[in-house]
Amino acid sequence: MTATATAEGLGTRIEEALRLRFAEQTAAAERYGTEFVALWKYAAEHALGGKLVRPRLLLDLLGALAPSTLSDEEARRAIGVAVDVEMLHFAFLLHDDVIDGDLIRRRRPNLIGSLVARHAAEPEEPILHWARSSAILLGDLLLASATLGFARADASPDTRERLLSLLEQTIFETVAGEHSDIALSDGVIAPDLRTILDTSAYKTATYSFVLPLRAAAVLAGASPAAETSLTEIGRHLGLAYQLQDDLLSVFGDPSEHGKDAFSDLREGKETAIIAYARMTGHWPSIELRFGTADLSAADASDMRDRLTECGAERFVRGLVEEQLRAASAVLAEAEAAGNLSAAAGRTILTLAARIEGRNG
Amino acid sequence: MTATATAEGLGTRIEEALRLRFAEQTAAAERYGTEFVALWKYAAEHALGGKLVRPRLLLDLLGALAPSTLSDEEARRAIGVAVDVEMLHFAFLLHDDVIDGDLIRRRRPNLIGSLVARHAAEPEEPILHWARSSAILLGDLLLASATLGFARADASPDTRERLLSLLEQTIFETVAGEHSDIALSDGVIAPDLRTILDTSAYKTATYSFVLPLRAAAVLAGASPAAETSLTEIGRHLGLAYQLQDDLLSVFGDPSEHGKDAFSDLREGKETAIIAYARMTGHWPSIELRFGTADLSAADASDMRDRLTECGAERFVRGLVEEQLRAASAVLAEAEAAGNLSAAAGRTILTLAARIEGRNG
Repeated sequence: MTATATAEGLGTRIEEALRLRFAEQTAAAERYGTEFVALWKYAAEHALGGKLVRPRLLLDLLGALAPSTLSDEEARRAIGVAVDVEMLHFAFLLHDDVIDGDLIRRRRPNLIGSLVARHAAEPEEPILHWARSSAILLGDLLLASATLGFARADASPDTRERLLSLLEQTIFETVAGEHSDIALSDGVIAPDLRTILDTSAYKTATYSFVLPLRAAAVLAGASPAAETSLTEIGRHLGLAYQLQDDLLSVFGDPSEHGKDAFSDLREGKETAIIAYARMTGHWPSIELRFGTADLSAADASDMRDRLTECGAERFVRGLVEEQLRAASAVLAEAEAAGNLSAAAGRTILTLAARIEGRNG
Repeated sequence: MTATATAEGLGTRIEEALRLRFAEQTAAAERYGTEFVALWKYAAEHALGGKLVRPRLLLDLLGALAPSTLSDEEARRAIGVAVDVEMLHFAFLLHDDVIDGDLIRRRRPNLIGSLVARHAAEPEEPILHWARSSAILLGDLLLASATLGFARADASPDTRERLLSLLEQTIFETVAGEHSDIALSDGVIAPDLRTILDTSAYKTATYSFVLPLRAAAVLAGASPAAETSLTEIGRHLGLAYQLQDDLLSVFGDPSEHGKDAFSDLREGKETAIIAYARMTGHWPSIELRFGTADLSAADASDMRDRLTECGAERFVRGLVEEQLRAASAVLAEAEAAGNLSAAAGRTILTLAARIEGRNG
């Protein structure tokens, strides 16, 4: 299996494996009543609507790293692990939505919103409670399912321990990042730039970038040195991705990025943009309306202009470039040392280019 | 290691292993900031305050089932799995407290209550949000930690798969039971007796009784037939335990059971007692004040008397006896068939006697 030969078929195979996993769980849910079955059916719908970027990244890089074409058995195992990575992602999304009180994701009802709509025309307190509690519980099951999947990967004891240790670090660090993110938004810790950058890296880069890259390395039997390089590369790319995301939310075109325009400004989200703006003389005028739920479009675009004027936009665009350059530097070094193949390098540069050119 | 020889030392060894596990996690938390370290420190305090009934049950039964004294290595492995069972219990408690909105457990602040007290004299919205979100995240980490612990148990592939499959079923069924319990309390499903009994068994019996008993069987290398008998026994004992708990909350002495007097009546909890009462002519007079948060002591004891008069108390006491008798019958059959040893039988009968004589 090479990246080019299977790129088209890959998406289908991941989707099939994910669909099968949900079908098994839905079947197991049958004996526990119709509401539990319904929960799994909604879960499958929402999970299968995703773009599967993490599993695709894992399998792309594995194709590039593997010394020879993967056997059917190796491909099956890799798809299994890729599906676990997606299950973990969905578990984190669910708990994130509960914590943020969100009913919407990318302008459509999220799982909680769908469960509410199943039972009530208007969101009422007991139904909201029911839907949010369901999302906590489903997240628990998906987290356990992903962990059990890693534990059962058909691999040598050594490879399995590498996978388990990778998963353990990933979950620990992602949760630490999420914890810090909530501490920022609830005003428990100070929103300085260093804390915000660390939080972004822990919360997003670790499971969305480092995990798929390192899992591919472990499955390809790559060296610990390769894994170390991929950890650094994943952290840089993931941070660049998150900073791009912050930029898009404020300066991007809502018809392209699909999020609510200015939702970050309305929610008072502590981003690198805001952390920079706080250190400038423009802050008092920005602060006035930052985090007001009924921020008008005119006030929002005024705030956006001030965030440009004070230098925050340029500063964060600079950080994105810096992170992308750092990723390239680590990659070049790893290639020169023979730790990563040229094919692996191409996969990573394609990913970096996608982050750089992102507008949605 | 026999049950009698080590019963005293056992509690200490479990506590030490649990303390060590939390110390390791707290050390790993250091690089993610003081709030994350604090979360782990509070977690350790709360987890170490428990009675460790599940790990003790596992190790007691293992001592009774094992054909010979356990080697040091086998004992260490068993203690590791027992600690994982306790971690899972704590994870479920945390998410349960988030879902129920509780800040108190057994008249003392629970983990959420402790986190609130760390930051505010009075519970304020952002701090409550912060504390509850922290409990969701910590629960995730403990759930992952327990699963990873099972995955790493030093065992043959066959034994490890038996352990993983047991854990998978346990988590799935417990979450299904919890889901059903919330559906009952939010009025999403009808509170009939059959649903309530199934919910109690899934939610409590499966992880608190069946899991430790079956894990002991797997670690002792007992036959699948023994595991099947222990599953049935655990379900009967667990259901008896939960029904006793329901009885204590309404008819017990609060100075002994340690819970808020009549909290179940005040919260409108759908128990077997209430399901029975609903089917009697006394229900309209009970329903009047059932589930009112400011239920007075006088009204509560009046309600309690009606629950006795309508036959609900006697009915549920009968169910408890029935479940205990059913457990004994399965045990006797398993002993007669040579599937469980006399020593294992004694451990189980001691547990049954404790449930029967419970007043706190």
